[in-house]
Amino acid sequence: MTEAQARNRFVSATVARLATVDMRTNPPKPHLVPIVFALLDDDTVVSAVDHKPKRTTVLRRLVNISANPHVCLLVDRYSDDWTQLWWVRADGRARVVEPGHEQGLRKHAIAALEHRYGQYHRRPITDALVFVEVTGWSGWSAGG
Amino acid sequence: MTEAQARNRFVSATVARLATVDMRTNPPKPHLVPIVFALLDDDTVVSAVDHKPKRTTVLRRLVNISANPHVCLLVDRYSDDWTQLWWVRADGRARVVEPGHEQGLRKHAIAALEHRYGQYHRRPITDALVFVEVTGWSGWSAGG
Repeated sequence: MTEAQARNRFVSATVARLATVDMRTNPPKPHLVPIVFALLDDDTVVSAVDHKPKRTTVLRRLVNISANPHVCLLVDRYSDDWTQLWWVRADGRARVVEPGHEQGLRKHAIAALEHRYGQYHRRPITDALVFVEVTGWSGWSAGG
Repeated sequence: MTEAQARNRFVSATVARLATVDMRTNPPKPHLVPIVFALLDDDTVVSAVDHKPKRTTVLRRLVNISANPHVCLLVDRYSDDWTQLWWVRADGRARVVEPGHEQGLRKHAIAALEHRYGQYHRRPITDALVFVEVTGWSGWSAGG
């Protein structure tokens, strides 16, 4: 699968999984959450943190990224017909942009997320955004 | 979501994602692959490595686990109706059992995988198995 094919398949999905590394233990532990996302340009993926309820506790993904920016994103397609399986992985570096910072970038990213997910119109994005600079796209398809 | 509810939802899925940590860099990098899996008992998840073609190169997940056993598994359900979203995370420690080792355990695990996935009857499991001892189940459901 070429990089362009991997990127196209990635964008075709509505949900991805974000893996970060929890550096509090030795050895460190991986951490996973599902995310909805938008591609801002060829190599920038953005996702938003759900607002309010969860912020009563610290969000593990944000703490992890602040201690270690390496992240991995995965989109996969499952089918009972195993000749139809495929997955795409995006490796990269993440950073968190909190409300009140880089407002032009936040506005652009929020518009991209709202464009892809009508659901955000009822629950505006007001909390932290996670930007991932993708340094490598890879993928596998059972179909070759 | 209780631990029992989380486990039940996890098992209801046909595919999960396995996150490991690649210790070759500083700071380390997370790594993700989709897996099919079976639950062997309340807290043991097993998955198989696809045989042959991929083994021409070293499988990153196996190398990662040998250097750092901490893994994270995720099952998620996406829906355009965001009141239907849920995910379950299983944190644990993994170990790899290669062919020729612990043959009783391998036989039991392979039978469990074949029972869940009829697809394995056409492509027998002959390569490494990854066993995850789950130390924590957690989950979130939009429905509360």
